[in-house]
Amino acid sequence: MFFHRQVLQYKATPEKPDAVYARKLQEVIGGQYGEITVAMQYSFQAWNAHMPGKYRDLLFATAAEEFGHVEMLATMVAQLLEKAPVGITEDAIQKDPTVAAIIGGTDVQEAIAAGAGARPVDSNGNPWNAGYVTASGNLLADFTSNVNAEMQGRIQVARLYHMTDDPGVRDLLSFLLARDTMHQNQWLAAARELQEEGNESVPVPSNFPIKKEHREVSYQAINFSNGAAMGQGSWASGPTPDGLGEFTYIDTPPEGVPMPPPTHPDARFYGTTELPNVVEKAAGTLQDKLKKE
Amino acid sequence: MFFHRQVLQYKATPEKPDAVYARKLQEVIGGQYGEITVAMQYSFQAWNAHMPGKYRDLLFATAAEEFGHVEMLATMVAQLLEKAPVGITEDAIQKDPTVAAIIGGTDVQEAIAAGAGARPVDSNGNPWNAGYVTASGNLLADFTSNVNAEMQGRIQVARLYHMTDDPGVRDLLSFLLARDTMHQNQWLAAARELQEEGNESVPVPSNFPIKKEHREVSYQAINFSNGAAMGQGSWASGPTPDGLGEFTYIDTPPEGVPMPPPTHPDARFYGTTELPNVVEKAAGTLQDKLKKE
Amino acid sequence: MFFHRQVLQYKATPEKPDAVYARKLQEVIGGQYGEITVAMQYSFQAWNAHMPGKYRDLLFATAAEEFGHVEMLATMVAQLLEKAPVGITEDAIQKDPTVAAIIGGTDVQEAIAAGAGARPVDSNGNPWNAGYVTASGNLLADFTSNVNAEMQGRIQVARLYHMTDDPGVRDLLSFLLARDTMHQNQWLAAARELQEEGNESVPVPSNFPIKKEHREVSYQAINFSNGAAMGQGSWASGPTPDGLGEFTYIDTPPEGVPMPPPTHPDARFYGTTELPNVVEKAAGTLQDKLKKE
Amino acid sequence: MFFHRQVLQYKATPEKPDAVYARKLQEVIGGQYGEITVAMQYSFQAWNAHMPGKYRDLLFATAAEEFGHVEMLATMVAQLLEKAPVGITEDAIQKDPTVAAIIGGTDVQEAIAAGAGARPVDSNGNPWNAGYVTASGNLLADFTSNVNAEMQGRIQVARLYHMTDDPGVRDLLSFLLARDTMHQNQWLAAARELQEEGNESVPVPSNFPIKKEHREVSYQAINFSNGAAMGQGSWASGPTPDGLGEFTYIDTPPEGVPMPPPTHPDARFYGTTELPNVVEKAAGTLQDKLKKE
Amino acid sequence: MFFHRQVLQYKATPEKPDAVYARKLQEVIGGQYGEITVAMQYSFQAWNAHMPGKYRDLLFATAAEEFGHVEMLATMVAQLLEKAPVGITEDAIQKDPTVAAIIGGTDVQEAIAAGAGARPVDSNGNPWNAGYVTASGNLLADFTSNVNAEMQGRIQVARLYHMTDDPGVRDLLSFLLARDTMHQNQWLAAARELQEEGNESVPVPSNFPIKKEHREVSYQAINFSNGAAMGQGSWASGPTPDGLGEFTYIDTPPEGVPMPPPTHPDARFYGTTELPNVVEKAAGTLQDKLKKE
Amino acid sequence: MFFHRQVLQYKATPEKPDAVYARKLQEVIGGQYGEITVAMQYSFQAWNAHMPGKYRDLLFATAAEEFGHVEMLATMVAQLLEKAPVGITEDAIQKDPTVAAIIGGTDVQEAIAAGAGARPVDSNGNPWNAGYVTASGNLLADFTSNVNAEMQGRIQVARLYHMTDDPGVRDLLSFLLARDTMHQNQWLAAARELQEEGNESVPVPSNFPIKKEHREVSYQAINFSNGAAMGQGSWASGPTPDGLGEFTYIDTPPEGVPMPPPTHPDARFYGTTELPNVVEKAAGTLQDKLKKE
Repeated sequence: MFFHRQVLQYKATPEKPDAVYARKLQEVIGGQYGEITVAMQYSFQAWNAHMPGKYRDLLFATAAEEFGHVEMLATMVAQLLEKAPVGITEDAIQKDPTVAAIIGGTDVQEAIAAGAGARPVDSNGNPWNAGYVTASGNLLADFTSNVNAEMQGRIQVARLYHMTDDPGVRDLLSFLLARDTMHQNQWLAAARELQEEGNESVPVPSNFPIKKEHREVSYQAINFSNGAAMGQGSWASGPTPDGLGEFTYIDTPPEGVPMPPPTHPDARFYGTTELPNVVEKAAGTLQDKLKKE
Repeated sequence: MFFHRQVLQYKATPEKPDAVYARKLQEVIGGQYGEITVAMQYSFQAWNAHMPGKYRDLLFATAAEEFGHVEMLATMVAQLLEKAPVGITEDAIQKDPTVAAIIGGTDVQEAIAAGAGARPVDSNGNPWNAGYVTASGNLLADFTSNVNAEMQGRIQVARLYHMTDDPGVRDLLSFLLARDTMHQNQWLAAARELQEEGNESVPVPSNFPIKKEHREVSYQAINFSNGAAMGQGSWASGPTPDGLGEFTYIDTPPEGVPMPPPTHPDARFYGTTELPNVVEKAAGTLQDKLKKE
Repeated sequence: MFFHRQVLQYKATPEKPDAVYARKLQEVIGGQYGEITVAMQYSFQAWNAHMPGKYRDLLFATAAEEFGHVEMLATMVAQLLEKAPVGITEDAIQKDPTVAAIIGGTDVQEAIAAGAGARPVDSNGNPWNAGYVTASGNLLADFTSNVNAEMQGRIQVARLYHMTDDPGVRDLLSFLLARDTMHQNQWLAAARELQEEGNESVPVPSNFPIKKEHREVSYQAINFSNGAAMGQGSWASGPTPDGLGEFTYIDTPPEGVPMPPPTHPDARFYGTTELPNVVEKAAGTLQDKLKKE
Repeated sequence: MFFHRQVLQYKATPEKPDAVYARKLQEVIGGQYGEITVAMQYSFQAWNAHMPGKYRDLLFATAAEEFGHVEMLATMVAQLLEKAPVGITEDAIQKDPTVAAIIGGTDVQEAIAAGAGARPVDSNGNPWNAGYVTASGNLLADFTSNVNAEMQGRIQVARLYHMTDDPGVRDLLSFLLARDTMHQNQWLAAARELQEEGNESVPVPSNFPIKKEHREVSYQAINFSNGAAMGQGSWASGPTPDGLGEFTYIDTPPEGVPMPPPTHPDARFYGTTELPNVVEKAAGTLQDKLKKE
Repeated sequence: MFFHRQVLQYKATPEKPDAVYARKLQEVIGGQYGEITVAMQYSFQAWNAHMPGKYRDLLFATAAEEFGHVEMLATMVAQLLEKAPVGITEDAIQKDPTVAAIIGGTDVQEAIAAGAGARPVDSNGNPWNAGYVTASGNLLADFTSNVNAEMQGRIQVARLYHMTDDPGVRDLLSFLLARDTMHQNQWLAAARELQEEGNESVPVPSNFPIKKEHREVSYQAINFSNGAAMGQGSWASGPTPDGLGEFTYIDTPPEGVPMPPPTHPDARFYGTTELPNVVEKAAGTLQDKLKKE
Repeated sequence: MFFHRQVLQYKATPEKPDAVYARKLQEVIGGQYGEITVAMQYSFQAWNAHMPGKYRDLLFATAAEEFGHVEMLATMVAQLLEKAPVGITEDAIQKDPTVAAIIGGTDVQEAIAAGAGARPVDSNGNPWNAGYVTASGNLLADFTSNVNAEMQGRIQVARLYHMTDDPGVRDLLSFLLARDTMHQNQWLAAARELQEEGNESVPVPSNFPIKKEHREVSYQAINFSNGAAMGQGSWASGPTPDGLGEFTYIDTPPEGVPMPPPTHPDARFYGTTELPNVVEKAAGTLQDKLKKE
C-alpha cells in the first residue's frame, strides 16, 4: 500500500517564474531517465522479486521516495509556470522580442492542455511511456540498469543546474543531485553484495550452462570497424572481468558463412519470386492451388 | 561508412519452420533490448564521442557487429516463417486444434504485412522505437548502460534457448550467447579502464562541483517503506563505493517541509480557483481584463 | 511525500496459475483505463490544483490508493504467471494442443522480458503512456474525466470477472469493483458540489465571456447524418442542461460557406502549384529568387 | 457512407499569417482532445452501438460534423502558415531577433515535412494516436467520456482564443466554442435520458450483480493522504449519487493484509532467487532439468 | 463539410462470427496501410493542396470514400465478434482445446475494452497513429505515396482473402480489392498527368536548381555490398528515367574523406573528453568556469 | 555482415555551429523519411527477399550506403551543436533576446539528454519508430514505396537547403540531393525492369485471380465529394494504366445498401442494448446466466 503525506521531502520553490525553464525541467519528470521512470522501475522490480528480504525492501523503499521526487518537480514546474505568457500578438513581437522568444521556448501544451501545470511528459513533449522500464526478475541485471538510470539522471540534473541561476531551483537540484549520489552508490553496493553472496555473477545470467554457448568466441574482441586503437584497450588482452577467460583481439572479422537460400513462402502471400520462366511454373502451381478454393 | 558483405557471421538455419517461435525471436530483433537497440545505441555513442581513440574505436567496432546480428536473426525469422499457416477455417479448428493454436501464437502482421518475413518489432508487435537508445556523451554512464543492455539481452536469449528444441535455432543462440558474454565483459573492462585512467568516476558526472550538492543526504539510506531488512545491507553502513563517504541508515524519513501554496495562473487559463466569494473577486478582475480585449 | 507499507489493501492470491488470464489482467494495470492511469491522473490533478482544501485532499487521497491497486494487480499477475509455460515444441503440440493454445494466449514478453512477472503494459502488450492522462486545471472538467475513467475501469473489471472462475481472482475483482463503485460516486458527488458552491458550471469553462461565442449555434442539434430518430431525443427540443437556452433541431445542415482560396507558400517549399502556364510564371519568379542565393 | 461537400461549415480565414499560432492550433486538430479524437470516437461508438435509433443517430450525426471541424482547422492552419519563414541565418538573427523568435516558436515539421501545411499532430508535434479514443459499447460510460472530451476541448479553445488577437481566427474559435457548448449539453442530455429510460444507471455497468462486489467498501471514503479537509465533502457522508447507499469516512486506512510469498517461476527464467545455500539446491534442480535437454 | 448516410457502400455481413479473423481484419482498419491511413492521408493532402481543380477534387472524392471503407470494415468486425468467447477456464481447456485456441488468437482488447467491438488499431493491437500519414504539398511525391499505399493495402486484402472461407467476408474483400485496383490506377494516371502537364517531374522536387546538387554522383550506382549481380540491372547503365543522364556503375565505393575531429562542447555538459593529462587541463578550465558561478 | 570504416562518404563540416539548425536537420536523420527509415527499410526488404540476384543485391548495396548517410548527418549535427547554449537567465533575455530566441528554437533534449549530440529523433523530438518501415515481400509495391521515400526525402533536403546559408552544411546537402536523385532514378528503373521481366505488374499483387474481385467497380471513378472538375482527369475516361480496362466516371455514388442490424454480444460484456422493456427480458436472460456462475 502507498500513503501520501502533504509535505515535500525538500523545499521546492523558485524565486520567480520561468516558463522556458519549466519546459526543460519536464525532462527529469517524464523523460527516459526522469523520476517517473525510476519510481515505476523500482516498483515493478519489487513486485516481481522472487525473494523477500533486504533487496526487495531496498526496492520498495526507494520506489516510494522516487514518487515523492516526481511530486517535488511537478510542484516546482507549476510554480515556474505561474506567470506563463498567455498569448502574443504581432505587435507584441515588434515591441518586445523577448516575449516572443519566451513563447518559442515553452512547452505550449503546458499552457493549452494543462492551464499552466506540470505534465507527465519529457522536455520535447513526448508522453512518458513504459517502454523505458526494465524489470527482468534477475537482480544483478536490474541493479545494473538502476545504476545506469541514476547516472543518466544525475548527468541530466547537473546539466539543468547550469541552465538556470534561480536560487530556489538550484537548491532543489542540489538536493536531487545528492540523492542521486546516494542511489548510484546504493545500487553499486547492492550489485556487489549480490555477487559476494553468490546469488549471481558475470556473465549474467550466470547459471546458464556455460558449455551450451560457443565458448570459442566468448572472449574475442572482433574489430568490425578499422580503428587501429581498439586493440590497445584492456578488452583486447588479459583476463576477463568474469574471471573465466582471456581476451583475444581479432583485427579482421572471419570470412563468415554463406547466407541460406531465400525463403519461398506459400504463393498466396504474393511475394515476388524467381525469374520469369520460373514464375510461370509457380503461377501454374498457384493456379492449381487457387482453383481448389 | 558502412559496408555490407553477403555472408552471415554465423550460420542461421532452423531445422524446420516454427511460426510461433518466429514471433518470440522478434523480441531480440526489435525489442527494448534487441539487436537494433544496441546497434543504434553504440552508433550514436560513437558519433557523439568527444575523443578519438580506443573507446570510440570499440564503439564503432561493436556497432557494426550488432547490425550483423540483426541480419542473422531476421534471416532466421524468415526461415522459421517459411511454412507459416496462411489461414484457418472453423472446420479446420474442429478437425485439428493444433492449427488454431499455432495461428493464435503467431505475429499475424508477419503474415499480413510482411508476407512471412521478419519485422523491426518486438514479440508483442510493438514497433522498435528510439526511446530505447541511450547516448549521453558521458562514457562511464553510457558504458554502464551498455553493460545493462548486454545483460538484459543475454537473459532474453537464454530464456529463448529453452523455448525451442530446434538444433539450428539453438546453435545460433549459442553463438549469440557467447558474443553477449564477450560484450558484457568488454563494457565492464572499458568502464573500469575509464576510471583507472581518471577520465570519470562515481558519482557520475564526477566533475560536478561536489560542494554544490546537499552533502548531508548524499549517503543516507532512507526507508520510505517498512521493510525491516533494508538496514541489513551494505548500503546502510560502511564506506560508500565512491570512496567519498560512509553510509548511514534512516529508518523513518524526516518530517518533510510544507508544500508551497497553490499557484494562481492568469484567469484566462480557466483553472478552478478558490472558494465562491473569492471567485467573485477574481471574476471581477477577469471581467476587467476581458473588457479590454 | 509517498510512503509504502509492505501489505496489500486486500488479499490477492489466485487459487492456481493461469498465464492466459494474466495477460488479460494487464489491461487494468497498464491499459488506457488501468490503475496506472488513474493513479497518475489524480496525482497530476492534485499537483496542478489551484486551491488547497477538500478537493485537493480528495485527489491526493485517491491517487495514493490507486498506486496500491497497481500493486495488488501486479502481485496477482506474478502469481498467475508462476507456472507460465517456458517453451513448446512441435512434438508437444502434437501430443497436447492445450499447451500450444496456452502459449498462444499469453503475453510472451511477460516470459521473455520479465521472467514471469507483471509489466506496465496493457493486454495487447502496448506500453502504458502518459497520453492517457488528463489534468487541465479545471476541476469540473477533470472530475468528469475521472467519472468516465472509473466507469470504463469498472466495466473492464466486470468483464474480466466473467473471464475466469478462479475464486481468488474473483475475490480481488469483487473488491476492486466495490472501490470503483465508491470512486464513481465520489467524483459525481464532487462534481455536483463544485457546481453547488459556484466554482464552475456547464458549459465548461463557465466564465468564458458568453457573448464571445456564436450564440446562434450554441443549442442547435444539427443532423450531419440521415438518421430520422435524432430529432426525438431530449437534445432536440426543450431546455438545455446548462439552463441557459432551448435546444432546436436542424434536420439538414446549412449550406456552408465557400472554402478560402488555396494557399501559395514560398516557392522554396516546392509545393505543386497552378496549371502549366501559371507555373512558368511562378518558375520565373522562382528563378529570380534563386538567382540571388 | 460519408460524403464531402467543398464548403466549410463556417468561414475560416485569418486576417494575416502567424506561423507561431499555427503550431498552437494543432492542439485542437491532432491533440488528445482535438477534433480528430472526437470524430473518430463518435464514429467507433456508432459502429459498435448495439441498438439502432436516436442514440446511434446522434452519434453518426455528430461524428460527421466533427470531421468537418478538422477540415476548418486544417484550412485555417494552412493559411496561417502561408508566410511561414523558410530559413534563418546568423545575420538575420543579429539584425532581427523577431525572426529568430518566430522560428523558435513554430512547428518545424509543418515547414520541412508538410511544406507549410497542417498536420495530424498536436501542438508539440506528437502524432495523433488512437489510444485517445474511447468506445466501450456501454453508452452511459461513453457519453460521460464524450462530455469530458467536449469540456476539455472547449477549455483548450477558450485558452487559444486569448492567445491571438487576429479577428479571423477569433471568429472561427467563437463558432467552435458555441458548437462545444451544444455538444456538452447534448451529451449531458443524452446521458440523463439513457438513465431516465432505464437503460443504464450508476454505478456503471449497472446490471453487474451487485451482490458480487464487496459492498462493505462500496461507499467508504478512505483517506490515503493526510489532508484533514477530505472529510468535509459530500463524498464523506450522506446519500450516494447512485441512490443505493450512504457515504462513510475512514480517516486512516485499515491495516491491510500480508503480501503473498514471492513467486518462484521455473529456473530457466533465470530470476534471482533465495539465499546462497538455497540457490545451490535450486541449481541442483536446474542441473537435473537441463541435463535432460 | 462531411455528411453521413446510414447505408454502406457494399454489403458487409459475415456468414458466421469468427473472433480470430476479426483480429486479422483490424490490420486493414487501423494498420500502417489500413483505411484510416488513406482516409486521413487524402484529406490532409486535399487541405494542403495549393491549387483548386481536378487534382484536389480527386483527393476530396477519394478521401470521403475511404472513410466509408473504415465503416464497412468496422461493421464487419463487430459482427465477426458477436459471439466472441467471454472467458475460459482450465476445465474448458481440458475439455475443448479449440476454445483455448480461439481465445489465444483474438484481440483481447476487442473484448475487454470494446465489449466485442471494432477498434482503431492494427492486427497486433497497436493504436493507429498519424506517423503513417504523408502529405508534403508536392503532388507527384504524394501521388506516388498514394500508389504505394493502395498497392500495400491491396496485397494485405489479398492475403486476408485467403485466411477465411466465409462467403460474406470474402464478398466484401472482393469489393475492396476492386476499389484498390481502381485507386492504384487512378493515382498512377494522376501522377502521369501531372508530369505531362509539366507540373512536376523526376527527380522530385523538379524545380530545385539542378546545378546546386553534386551532379557527379547523381547517376552513380555505388555498390556498398558485394553482390555481383548489382551491375546487371538497368540502374547500372543506360539512360536514367528522369531523362537527364546516364547511369554508371561503381563496384567499390570511393575511399571516403576523413571524419572531422570530435566535438568539444561546453564542459558543463559533462561529456567525457580526452586523455587524462588533457583532462586535467580541461578540468582546470572547468574549475575556473565554475568558480564564477 | 556489416563493416564500418572510419571515414565519411562526403565531408560534413559546418562553417560554424548553429543549434537551431541542428534541430531541423534531425528531420532527415530520425524523421518519417529520414535516413534511418530508408536504411532499415532497404535492409528488411533484402532480408525478406525471396530471390537472390540483382534486386536483392541492389537492396543490400543501398541499405549500407544509407547507414553511412545517418552517420554523416549525425556527425554534422554534433558539430552544429558544439557551441549550443547551456543556459539562459532572465537578465540574459533582457540584454540579448537573440540568445532567448536560439534557446527557443533548439531541441532541448540534444542538450539535456545527449550533451550536445545528435539523437535518433525527428525535428520535433519524436523518437524514430519502426512504424515508418515498409517491407511486404512484394518487390513492385516495395520499390514504389522506395521511390516515394526518396522523393519525400529529397523534398525535405531541398527545403532544408534554403533554411541555412552555411556553406559547409549546404555542401553536404548538395551531395545528399544528388544521391537522392540517383536513388529515385534507381528504384524507378528497378520497378520498370521488374514489370518488363514479367515478375509483377499493376494492379499489385498481379497474380491474385482477377475473377475474384468485383470487376464492375474496378475502373469506376466515383465522386464522393462535389468537385465538378474530377471528371476532367485521365482517371475518368480512357484506358487504365494496368491495360486491362476503361475508366468510367460516376458523378453521384450509388445509393448503398442497408446497414446490417446492430450486434448483440453476450450480456456479460455489459453493452447498452435496446429499449427498456426489451432490456428487462435481456436482464432476465442475464440473471439466468449469472445464477449459474
